[in-house]
Amino acid sequence: MKKNNQFENSKNNIFVNINGAITDAQSAKVSVFDRGFLYGDSIYEVVYSQNGVIIFLNDHIDRLYNSANILKIDFTFSREELISQILKTAAYSNIKDAYIRIIITRGQADIDLDPNSSDNNNVVIIVKNKKDHAKTFYENGIKLFIPNIVRNNINSVNPNAKSGNYLNNVMAISEAKSAGADDGVMKNSIGNITEGTSFNIWIVKNGMLKTPPVSSGLLKGITREKVLNICEQNKFNINTDPFNEVELLQADEVFITSSTRGIMPVHMINDTIFGSTVNDWPITIKVAELLKEKIKDEANCMEYKYI
Amino acid sequence: MKKNNQFENSKNNIFVNINGAITDAQSAKVSVFDRGFLYGDSIYEVVYSQNGVIIFLNDHIDRLYNSANILKIDFTFSREELISQILKTAAYSNIKDAYIRIIITRGQADIDLDPNSSDNNNVVIIVKNKKDHAKTFYENGIKLFIPNIVRNNINSVNPNAKSGNYLNNVMAISEAKSAGADDGVMKNSIGNITEGTSFNIWIVKNGMLKTPPVSSGLLKGITREKVLNICEQNKFNINTDPFNEVELLQADEVFITSSTRGIMPVHMINDTIFGSTVNDWPITIKVAELLKEKIKDEANCMEYKYI
Repeated sequence: MKKNNQFENSKNNIFVNINGAITDAQSAKVSVFDRGFLYGDSIYEVVYSQNGVIIFLNDHIDRLYNSANILKIDFTFSREELISQILKTAAYSNIKDAYIRIIITRGQADIDLDPNSSDNNNVVIIVKNKKDHAKTFYENGIKLFIPNIVRNNINSVNPNAKSGNYLNNVMAISEAKSAGADDGVMKNSIGNITEGTSFNIWIVKNGMLKTPPVSSGLLKGITREKVLNICEQNKFNINTDPFNEVELLQADEVFITSSTRGIMPVHMINDTIFGSTVNDWPITIKVAELLKEKIKDEANCMEYKYI
Repeated sequence: MKKNNQFENSKNNIFVNINGAITDAQSAKVSVFDRGFLYGDSIYEVVYSQNGVIIFLNDHIDRLYNSANILKIDFTFSREELISQILKTAAYSNIKDAYIRIIITRGQADIDLDPNSSDNNNVVIIVKNKKDHAKTFYENGIKLFIPNIVRNNINSVNPNAKSGNYLNNVMAISEAKSAGADDGVMKNSIGNITEGTSFNIWIVKNGMLKTPPVSSGLLKGITREKVLNICEQNKFNINTDPFNEVELLQADEVFITSSTRGIMPVHMINDTIFGSTVNDWPITIKVAELLKEKIKDEANCMEYKYI
């Protein structure tokens, strides 16, 4: 019961915008006929803010539209309206360093699998305090595990659409936690590495940075894109060919990227140790510094400032 | 807007039980922090009633437990409590021929992919009028299409768990409808036939009845099981080896099974026609009659009578 009580207590600092109306966490509800609830028929994005500025919002909205395109979800609102609602909710929260989740469902209708049965969206925007990930993950690395569960096939539920069908990832993190790890990194059905349950994965080998291609079955991470750009600009060797578990475990350094985590070094995967202090990940730390610079620039940009 | 208006009008005859409290459709809501809404982290069953008796409820509850077991969802209530709530809601509705959907989610907590972050379920029971499928489907057959989208891999999201991750099926029916068909039947990644978007598929060839095995990647349908039993009892030849699209399209008869549809003959798949009147499906019609007898027996059983 403890966990739920903690959630109850934290609910005071959560603000939820449902189709334009802002409410508290307790009252934030959707219909049981919403297709997001019935089928996971929804898409979402997570962005965060630094000192009242939403970081890389434009990229995330672009990706939201890409997810909608893959899943053929029509929007009954404009991009400008959506961004305005996000900024409105963030401003209302008065939280300067916020976690912001934007969920768009295919709407509600009488129960019917056919997506054409509904013709309006439900738009949910959740704003709350951004939880800092434990310092130890950045200083000593995160512990990963490769579960037996494999990543969804591109031809079944395309992982490049960030959707409400997340059981694949839920079961993967569950398996990883049971194995004593912090999180899981998944293979596809032909054994190539894809991505983590909520992050992209990178390896460094002989000075070369590698991350799997979207064709291996993964979400094109915004931070993944930023890091690819940083590597290009700084003349690092980069490669996005598929690689398997053997190559992953033989890497000199391993790190993960995600919007809320930035760059986080990997301590170990299964039984293989890659490093335990920042000295063990020289290239990872270098790229992490460059990413922080880029985010600092973004945080100075006034476009998505709401406080 | 028309479709939604129809839904608004039909809402009067819908009753929803949320964690023990019965409400109308309009007020039936769940938290946006419910894991069913966030991740499709839920399981469900659909049962129906005939003249105030729920048909095969025991089998459906067994399967609900099996889905929970596959997805490691713990229940914070007993089987007896769940059945009692289902019967209570059905009785309250006063609907004699009802569609009943039972949804169990992993509950709500602060946003966290880890399933251990939540330790209580949300239980939603929806009771409404059972829509009769159009007579023409039984007299002239349903039109199916094999979409490009393939069924979820058993090692990714096991189709034998009836979960809230239904985008795979949503996209398949969408593709089938776009092709002018009524519904879709899906292949797995190695080209074997699995199941329809919400039904099992059967073929008849030279007097032998065949339906794909669970290992091909499908939900073990309750009606599928009943029909297998009927075939055994009546000395029909049955076979549950995997088969592919070629074998499917060369069948003498094709039919589908589901709890709400019973047995429905298939008119055509893609461009191949199997029949257009009941005379074209002699074995299908024979088995359908035997199934109707079995259901009539069940409807005379008092165990799950609520009116």
